[in-house]
Amino acid sequence: MKLYDFTLAPNPRRTRIFIAEKGLKIDTEQVNIFEAKNRTPEFLAKNPAGGLPVLQLDDGFHLAESVAICRYLEGLHPQPNLMGKDSREQAVIEMWNRRMELNLFAPAGRAFQHTNELFNGRIKQFPDYGATQRETVTQQIQWLDAQLGNRPFIAADRFTIADITALVAIDFAAGFAGVKLDPALKNVGRWHQTVSSRPSAKA
Amino acid sequence: MKLYDFTLAPNPRRTRIFIAEKGLKIDTEQVNIFEAKNRTPEFLAKNPAGGLPVLQLDDGFHLAESVAICRYLEGLHPQPNLMGKDSREQAVIEMWNRRMELNLFAPAGRAFQHTNELFNGRIKQFPDYGATQRETVTQQIQWLDAQLGNRPFIAADRFTIADITALVAIDFAAGFAGVKLDPALKNVGRWHQTVSSRPSAKA
Repeated sequence: MKLYDFTLAPNPRRTRIFIAEKGLKIDTEQVNIFEAKNRTPEFLAKNPAGGLPVLQLDDGFHLAESVAICRYLEGLHPQPNLMGKDSREQAVIEMWNRRMELNLFAPAGRAFQHTNELFNGRIKQFPDYGATQRETVTQQIQWLDAQLGNRPFIAADRFTIADITALVAIDFAAGFAGVKLDPALKNVGRWHQTVSSRPSAKA
Repeated sequence: MKLYDFTLAPNPRRTRIFIAEKGLKIDTEQVNIFEAKNRTPEFLAKNPAGGLPVLQLDDGFHLAESVAICRYLEGLHPQPNLMGKDSREQAVIEMWNRRMELNLFAPAGRAFQHTNELFNGRIKQFPDYGATQRETVTQQIQWLDAQLGNRPFIAADRFTIADITALVAIDFAAGFAGVKLDPALKNVGRWHQTVSSRPSAKA
């Protein structure tokens, strides 16, 4: 197997952390998004949607979409479990992973795209819209702080894919979307410190 | 079990079609989003994220997020299979379901929210941004037409959750986001006619 990756992009990082938590070693190949290497005919033959990451399987099939890649690897390597041990736990973890993805990760991405000069000329930017997305990220992190309370992890009594998505979203928001983690948010702060100290966070 | 539902909203429709395909009967209760009934303290105790649908389990647990609800029901009632029979097929179906959700369904929602007067005063609207989302929907349907070719369904040789998401997205785009299906797109047109003629499409 081989993972088409771009170190600076958040979706590939989700997959890299997942792979590290599983204790797997998978070769990677960098595809530079900033140089539009993911829009070449060669890459589009692998993923016609043009996104990263993409996992090339041993028979040459190309599997795209971060969470789909994680689900495939979870099936091949069930331990440690990161996506749920039975139908109900799988559903609860998916609920939380979707909340972190759709309500936190995605608006952080839109805030970045509409306010950062890297996207000047790539998309039609609406900086005022980007500012509303930044505000959404801020509110969602506050919401997460209230939901977390004293719980050690987001979706279960152990680390799961929902923690990966939230970690990557929050780090991305701080690094690229102009939303630093507010130190007054004690629960998210404690959780963030815990998950950031796992070796996988450096993947 | 009971499904908190709102007939006019697209995410609940995804779940209703899934339930119909499974041949299940689940009681529903309407929660009127237009009257902000999903923002009452009573409803937020069920789903603190405030969205629909929500599935109330027999022990009182509330499961939110359309795809998480589908995954739970798939586990309880594996036949007919709608989300994949093994790890690899599950991953491929999830890849396609995510493409339909993130690249088609979500921009249709943003086009609606930023251009429809129903959202005037509910969110800060950016109509010009909404127009770009409409254009994204148009392009994604063209992309889907090219990807489909002669294939009968989107993610497998049978109807799956990816077809449900795409059907709901395309119908929503036509009905609420100002993007009618272009009759020149023969592959999507044929597929749309096939999936729309299934009894579940009326759910």
